[in-house]
Amino acid sequence: MADAKRIQRDLEALRDFSAPGGEGTTRLSYTPAFRKAADYVLEQMRACALEAREDGVGNLYGLRRGLDPAAPKILSGSHLDTVRCSGYFDGQAGIVCALEVARMLEENGVRLRRGFEAVATVMEEGARFKNLGGSKLAMGVWGEAELDGMQDDDGITLREALRAYGLSGNLACVCRRDEPVRAFLEVHMEQGSRLEREGIDLGVVEKIFGCRWFTLTVKGVTAHPSTPMDQRRDAALASVSLISHMARITAEQYAGRATLTVGRMSLYPGEINAIPSRAVFSMDFRSGQESCFEELDGILERECRRTEQEYGVQAQCELYTYTPPTPCAREIVTALEAAAEKSGSSALRMDSGAGHDAMIFALGWPVGMLFLPSRRGLTHCKEEWTDYENVARGADALYKAVLALDRE
Amino acid sequence: MADAKRIQRDLEALRDFSAPGGEGTTRLSYTPAFRKAADYVLEQMRACALEAREDGVGNLYGLRRGLDPAAPKILSGSHLDTVRCSGYFDGQAGIVCALEVARMLEENGVRLRRGFEAVATVMEEGARFKNLGGSKLAMGVWGEAELDGMQDDDGITLREALRAYGLSGNLACVCRRDEPVRAFLEVHMEQGSRLEREGIDLGVVEKIFGCRWFTLTVKGVTAHPSTPMDQRRDAALASVSLISHMARITAEQYAGRATLTVGRMSLYPGEINAIPSRAVFSMDFRSGQESCFEELDGILERECRRTEQEYGVQAQCELYTYTPPTPCAREIVTALEAAAEKSGSSALRMDSGAGHDAMIFALGWPVGMLFLPSRRGLTHCKEEWTDYENVARGADALYKAVLALDRE
Repeated sequence: MADAKRIQRDLEALRDFSAPGGEGTTRLSYTPAFRKAADYVLEQMRACALEAREDGVGNLYGLRRGLDPAAPKILSGSHLDTVRCSGYFDGQAGIVCALEVARMLEENGVRLRRGFEAVATVMEEGARFKNLGGSKLAMGVWGEAELDGMQDDDGITLREALRAYGLSGNLACVCRRDEPVRAFLEVHMEQGSRLEREGIDLGVVEKIFGCRWFTLTVKGVTAHPSTPMDQRRDAALASVSLISHMARITAEQYAGRATLTVGRMSLYPGEINAIPSRAVFSMDFRSGQESCFEELDGILERECRRTEQEYGVQAQCELYTYTPPTPCAREIVTALEAAAEKSGSSALRMDSGAGHDAMIFALGWPVGMLFLPSRRGLTHCKEEWTDYENVARGADALYKAVLALDRE
Repeated sequence: MADAKRIQRDLEALRDFSAPGGEGTTRLSYTPAFRKAADYVLEQMRACALEAREDGVGNLYGLRRGLDPAAPKILSGSHLDTVRCSGYFDGQAGIVCALEVARMLEENGVRLRRGFEAVATVMEEGARFKNLGGSKLAMGVWGEAELDGMQDDDGITLREALRAYGLSGNLACVCRRDEPVRAFLEVHMEQGSRLEREGIDLGVVEKIFGCRWFTLTVKGVTAHPSTPMDQRRDAALASVSLISHMARITAEQYAGRATLTVGRMSLYPGEINAIPSRAVFSMDFRSGQESCFEELDGILERECRRTEQEYGVQAQCELYTYTPPTPCAREIVTALEAAAEKSGSSALRMDSGAGHDAMIFALGWPVGMLFLPSRRGLTHCKEEWTDYENVARGADALYKAVLALDRE
């Protein structure tokens, strides 16, 4: 059985690897806090007899070799980075479950036919560089171009960040994972409250929603606040109108099918007493259907043109990143469901509204995900919580699934 | 006659006293750029035989003594600070006109009965501390409490800024202007395009609009962007709704009577992929009628409550600063109108939509304002422009007004 105490120890250790100041845990990729967390994970991997290594971009792998070196391995894990002021379960719980499975295999003296590899990815959250970066580099979705073409808020390129962190950024030799893999299994907390509401122990993910991010730039003309409201080119009020229309359309016409979030917004020059000449803000769309994204693209385009007409501004919409909706492998879904049952947990098939590294690994390998209940559905905030016993239930089901997939 | 070349030289010199980087002129109060501009003004004052001094908070005065030391003086000038990325006419043109009048008095060997004092104030714009600060300190509206109770964006108090700038901050001895003054005359560019549109040389201000600033804080709960839109407490979308309603009401129901500007906005934690837990933004209302402010207060209060209900957030509205609408002294309006005519300029009586130091000096003294045409009505931006010949016309009218008010 998985040990909730060990799981608690690991999670609380990770909680404290955080940038100073602010509430909750802030661990952006390639920061000193991330380095400390990575060293902790590497150490824990070694402590349970895994062969631990860091790839050229900071993903961590811990391998328990199988009896048959030719048999495709089973990988399991999640991401080690967090958003700002986050909790310490999102991503982290999946890494800790994979470590706990490795410990259980070792304690129980299990010799698997397949290799089992615990995984901790970097750059999943997109809080510093674009999201899902560690898995995209591992799967060859990103290459050398992205290392130079991407900057954080301080203008540091990804390649510069890698070097400052002490990594080679050598993609060809030490990063790409192009071998066949039997399954990538990711345990993750639910980003929603369905499991909690329905009193179910575990979620088995059938489909992961896609995620489409835009950067909007609205350019007007700054002027004095006494300028009559019908004679302005007010970038702020134009942006507010654009966001307000898009939010209403998404909430009303796409209820249950898509969501819209505006998480970042800056006004320039940013004076109380100057009409903003420029507004820059993000739009995050989520949906399980590609057709919704296509429709929302058209609506956003139309709303930009309407805003331009109505406010005399320029509204520019740039696609920042897109990950399409991704189904999990059907036989992995079945295996995870059976494993949950065998380990004595109730389980529910569901979709994931949030994006995960599993979507990227799905480009090459069969993937599956187990969801843990999230208290009040809160994640990406310091209130994020899953009971340690729930995490242990996830580890138990993961253990059973690994055994089952090894036996095939 | 005023010399447009000298005026150009002064304005272009002031243009270049700017914080490095960014477009246009950025000269916040008590910064190194402000120090250089202040030294330039003090030097120009001395060059035209004014007794130049800096008060305890950085306002500059240059006195030409009158024959009758007991006769209340005539003061004229405007503010030396700018907003970020500003032009070099707003405020500055009024200082340069007062300097030019002093030069003309000196060149023409005019001995006035009253003292004439050129004035350059600090902290008018509110770009670093609250607005109209130099005049408020001079008139005793602010006192010691404000020196400690006000902070800039970096958390530096006004008193600390004064000390770092090398000033005593001694209000009692070297700042308060509690003597009687015959008139404070402020030349300023129009913040609007009426003079340009109507082809008029100068505006004579009858009333200065009031200005009411609020800081709004909307508190929600952060959560993952996949959270259904009807299950969120989204501080960003709640704020967008609040701003959008207030803008529509102000634009439609108060057209021609009041304006609303949102110049600053911050979302926290500020992640693309996290629903904001908090939004902080400014609201700047302008109106010529106190009753409009009273009504808009009620509407804002009601809209905050509606937003709270509709979005499950808390919306808190804090009054940051208020300056009521202020009429200019009737006999000064008449004198300025006559002076414009005498100096060969066409003139138009009008209201000022923007706030000015003259509003604060009006608490103790008769005030009047002359407006210069503004190209395309643009101010608080690098495109802000008044032809140098127009500024010279303002100086000529100001000169005639000073002579007339001296002769009374």
